[in-house]
Amino acid sequence: MGWAIALHGGAGDIPHSLPPERRLPREACLRHCLQIGVDALTSRKSPLDVVELVVRELENNPHFNAGRGSVLTTSGTVEMEACIMDGKSMRCGAVSGLTTVVNAISLSRLVMEKTPHIYLGFKGAEAFAREQGIETVDASHFITQENVERLKQAKEANRVQVDYTQPVEKDVKRDELKPDGDSQIGTVGCVAVDSEGNLAAATSTGGLVNKMVGRIGDTPIIGAGTYANSLCAVSATGKGEAIIRGTVARDVAALMEFKGMSLQEAAALVVGDRVPKGHVGLVAVSATGEVTMPFNTTGMFRACATEDGHSEIAIWDS
Amino acid sequence: MGWAIALHGGAGDIPHSLPPERRLPREACLRHCLQIGVDALTSRKSPLDVVELVVRELENNPHFNAGRGSVLTTSGTVEMEACIMDGKSMRCGAVSGLTTVVNAISLSRLVMEKTPHIYLGFKGAEAFAREQGIETVDASHFITQENVERLKQAKEANRVQVDYTQPVEKDVKRDELKPDGDSQIGTVGCVAVDSEGNLAAATSTGGLVNKMVGRIGDTPIIGAGTYANSLCAVSATGKGEAIIRGTVARDVAALMEFKGMSLQEAAALVVGDRVPKGHVGLVAVSATGEVTMPFNTTGMFRACATEDGHSEIAIWDS
Repeated sequence: MGWAIALHGGAGDIPHSLPPERRLPREACLRHCLQIGVDALTSRKSPLDVVELVVRELENNPHFNAGRGSVLTTSGTVEMEACIMDGKSMRCGAVSGLTTVVNAISLSRLVMEKTPHIYLGFKGAEAFAREQGIETVDASHFITQENVERLKQAKEANRVQVDYTQPVEKDVKRDELKPDGDSQIGTVGCVAVDSEGNLAAATSTGGLVNKMVGRIGDTPIIGAGTYANSLCAVSATGKGEAIIRGTVARDVAALMEFKGMSLQEAAALVVGDRVPKGHVGLVAVSATGEVTMPFNTTGMFRACATEDGHSEIAIWDS
Repeated sequence: MGWAIALHGGAGDIPHSLPPERRLPREACLRHCLQIGVDALTSRKSPLDVVELVVRELENNPHFNAGRGSVLTTSGTVEMEACIMDGKSMRCGAVSGLTTVVNAISLSRLVMEKTPHIYLGFKGAEAFAREQGIETVDASHFITQENVERLKQAKEANRVQVDYTQPVEKDVKRDELKPDGDSQIGTVGCVAVDSEGNLAAATSTGGLVNKMVGRIGDTPIIGAGTYANSLCAVSATGKGEAIIRGTVARDVAALMEFKGMSLQEAAALVVGDRVPKGHVGLVAVSATGEVTMPFNTTGMFRACATEDGHSEIAIWDS
């Protein structure tokens, strides 16, 4: 038993050749966010507060596909989504289709706490944001030049993809692009448990490059991209459609609950055997302070720390 | 082994005193829809075609809360949602926030078949409907006078509820209204299996009376309101938030898969022990042709038939 925290900045086909100027700022962000989470946990903030705090930091960083770094829809707009869940109470909140909200994760928490509902989307979610007085900015704030270029390339290749780590290449050859569009995958998320076994999970994303307007992915879906109960907390990342179909986050918990597996066994089975290779990663913690961060992609931006002093920041297999 | 079909028109606090003029048309609709489904199955239509066909009929009937009978948001608008899933391939499609689409279930199938995504919501889903040329009508088409009255009453009582079977009472006293708003619950759904064990599930709804604009319920959430895999197909109904939190449809399948339970055992455990009393019902069929229709509410509008000649149309416990 002891506290534990894990976070991710997305799993995908992250090339080992990722140049330092693209690798280092992301590693720095992971380190920074991990420290914020550890400080919050050790100063006895609730896991729910901790995961919200860490995901806000990840959203504010333009290097990850959420908040400020969100990729663009086929119309060149941003549509962000997020989800938060408390393990003990199983209360949860989710949002989709946000265009002006600076921290989608905090709006999902307000949906959980201030409405009779779990999940608000699009215009209604934006109206609720205004009603609650949460920070908003002009939609153009979220659109980085890099993501404009990525959308252009994706359109030229007629692909729908998640892409935020690849350098934007000029004169890219069409046959170098994967038409199935899953060469890079992006989401941010955090899970945490305190030394009393209270668990929480949070996930946030901008979705897929060149996605259709209105597309909803796995992130806001309880049991797919995000889940927490009294046994574990899970935040998944990768190809949203595979994660939805695989009810990935719930299945980790269900294997623990119904088959008596450990967190590691359950997460390894889900990511290793139950979803397509190359598509999915997740971070998870259990009520007893276990941590696991499996992925079946080339890499996953991730970090974790536990009360017994273990700490890790990594992208590829170690 | 043999084909089987089950369908529902919502579970909730359906009073045993439901007057004949409110009971009989619903029973007639269940009978009509069951016959359509049985005819389709016995003429060897695929279960996916069957569940879509049956749910279209249920949507077109103004007595159930979906399509034409959809209840209203707090703004007096209709926002419909639906989901369809094929068991063998685990392909699925979902839509939310529809305002003009006559058959939400058919649009969810088009999302599954014609896009790289699973789930489209709101403006983007409406745009996709137009692009596909699916039947749409003016949004006002879905708004029945009865639902306008229900919204008015719900607003007077400051409640968010699902209500479509209760007569609209004049001069209703406030203390007769349940403030938690779950006195009546509405959705339509169908599950089917053919004699080769191919499974499919479909669910459609207008949501909750007086819901916030943008509210998304359990219906379109894979693993919550709708789920199918190679073992079973499930369509749930009731209080959406409880169904989401309980990952109801996936949990039925997970208990079969991970604990070796029969369909009846799994569904009875989920509805009986794992969700709040008075909130949830479901219909489910297994690959081997079992059928189950448990609910923990006062009643559930439901019907089923199997190849061995069993057939049932019911509202309350028999």
